[in-house]
Amino acid sequence: MTAYFEEFISKYKKILETELATAIDKLEAPLTLKDAMAYSLKAGGKRIRPLLLFAAIDAFGEKPETGLQTAIALEMVHTYSLIHDDLPSMDDDDLRRGKPTNHKVFGEAMAILAGDGLLTYSFQLIANDPYLDSDKKIRLLHLLSKSAGPEGMVGGQVADIQAENRNLKIADLEYIHNHKTGRLLTFSVMAGAIIGGATELELTLLEKFSGHLGLAFQISDDILDVEGDEGIIGKPIGSDNGKLKCTYPSLLSLEGAKTHLSSHIEEAKHCLAQTNLKTDLLENLTELVAGRDR
Amino acid sequence: MTAYFEEFISKYKKILETELATAIDKLEAPLTLKDAMAYSLKAGGKRIRPLLLFAAIDAFGEKPETGLQTAIALEMVHTYSLIHDDLPSMDDDDLRRGKPTNHKVFGEAMAILAGDGLLTYSFQLIANDPYLDSDKKIRLLHLLSKSAGPEGMVGGQVADIQAENRNLKIADLEYIHNHKTGRLLTFSVMAGAIIGGATELELTLLEKFSGHLGLAFQISDDILDVEGDEGIIGKPIGSDNGKLKCTYPSLLSLEGAKTHLSSHIEEAKHCLAQTNLKTDLLENLTELVAGRDR
Repeated sequence: MTAYFEEFISKYKKILETELATAIDKLEAPLTLKDAMAYSLKAGGKRIRPLLLFAAIDAFGEKPETGLQTAIALEMVHTYSLIHDDLPSMDDDDLRRGKPTNHKVFGEAMAILAGDGLLTYSFQLIANDPYLDSDKKIRLLHLLSKSAGPEGMVGGQVADIQAENRNLKIADLEYIHNHKTGRLLTFSVMAGAIIGGATELELTLLEKFSGHLGLAFQISDDILDVEGDEGIIGKPIGSDNGKLKCTYPSLLSLEGAKTHLSSHIEEAKHCLAQTNLKTDLLENLTELVAGRDR
Repeated sequence: MTAYFEEFISKYKKILETELATAIDKLEAPLTLKDAMAYSLKAGGKRIRPLLLFAAIDAFGEKPETGLQTAIALEMVHTYSLIHDDLPSMDDDDLRRGKPTNHKVFGEAMAILAGDGLLTYSFQLIANDPYLDSDKKIRLLHLLSKSAGPEGMVGGQVADIQAENRNLKIADLEYIHNHKTGRLLTFSVMAGAIIGGATELELTLLEKFSGHLGLAFQISDDILDVEGDEGIIGKPIGSDNGKLKCTYPSLLSLEGAKTHLSSHIEEAKHCLAQTNLKTDLLENLTELVAGRDR
């Protein structure tokens, strides 16, 4: 990591986390609901999605702060999806990033409502953004809802549930990941491009970039699940495998998965190189995604 | 009911129901998810919220069809809230409008995701509405998310859960209803006013109107729960009471609740009379809400 990149990450993670807390604080809502929403927002992680958004805005020479409300909204949508995915009727996970999952702390009803609240509030934050004009906000809200809804993340989660204990082909697995995690990662990049004022060509190249990035992200996650250290990633190693879920290593072998990962990283970088944008932060994030310390 | 009002109801319910089905049909999403979303949307009801929206647009002399996408979105948000409220960890209801609840048919995971999908899709539909300009769409999206989120419906549901088995004062009960059901009813009227091009004064009067209407709606529902016929409303009589929930009849006596209802209906009509709008449909809907056949 270059010093510039490290500084970017640490600066914007801090800004994001402060603003996430402020956004919850100022809600006029029952305290327990705010606590439950804040609990999972604070649980951390690398904040890859907001950082991608900030980096994409930076690529256009605009101030990343322009995307702050969208970044908060994006992290809230991601967090809602984790809370609902962890529920007993879904993945039934007790731990997330080494901490008890939301429903383990607040109970199932409050966890469902905290997720519902985060999802709904995210749209309110973008609609209320004082720094963007209505046309840009509508483009962001349309893309976010499409990326997170039945045609995106929710559809991917349904496909994932239906795939459990079934043998999948690589195309089925890519469908699931493209929807379950890919669409929101793509939104992260595209939202930055919309805020930055991208041309049609730039939008096309960045969409392609984010597609490769999303798959690299998932393959790397699957590899981590096989190789990782429980203490670092905060969930039992091989937990996906224990449930007979198909993964890239189980379909392609560990070495095959690593080759697949490298090829998506190269394709992603190739897309960036075709733009005339200042893409160093996006390139660094791509390498971070392929790494093992997230 | 006048013939004009009856025709209005039957015409716009039909348009709404056709468009709800079309909106689900055209989704590129897993079939089971679409089935689960459509199941609860088709389960019927009086469609009070979309009808209020259409009636409010009509009050400004505009074509109700201008609000069709918003009406669909609104009914989806309402339906998502019913699906999540019925879940085993919430109200644990097996029947809704005389039919098995969503999780009884599709399982708990799919019911949660069908709700998530309906909520998210509703924002997509408004953002994508080809008949409204971006400024109006942003106003609608902001008001909808605020009305449905932590400061509105989700907050009200949390307060409702926390109130179970506790003795409430009338002010606590009104807080719950103002948020849990009131805010979305207010949105129905205000969205029509925004689409119809209301002045600030008209917005203020219609907001006040919808506040009284919302409370009338809830009091009438509580009275129905004591007096109603199980076959008509499709859930066991006195089911709220069986769970030791406070209701208007339990706090004010049945007669007291009826007086309270009448006073809110009168206040609501008084607000309408202060506008110079064509409010006959809104008046008729107010009377329908106070009635017992919904």
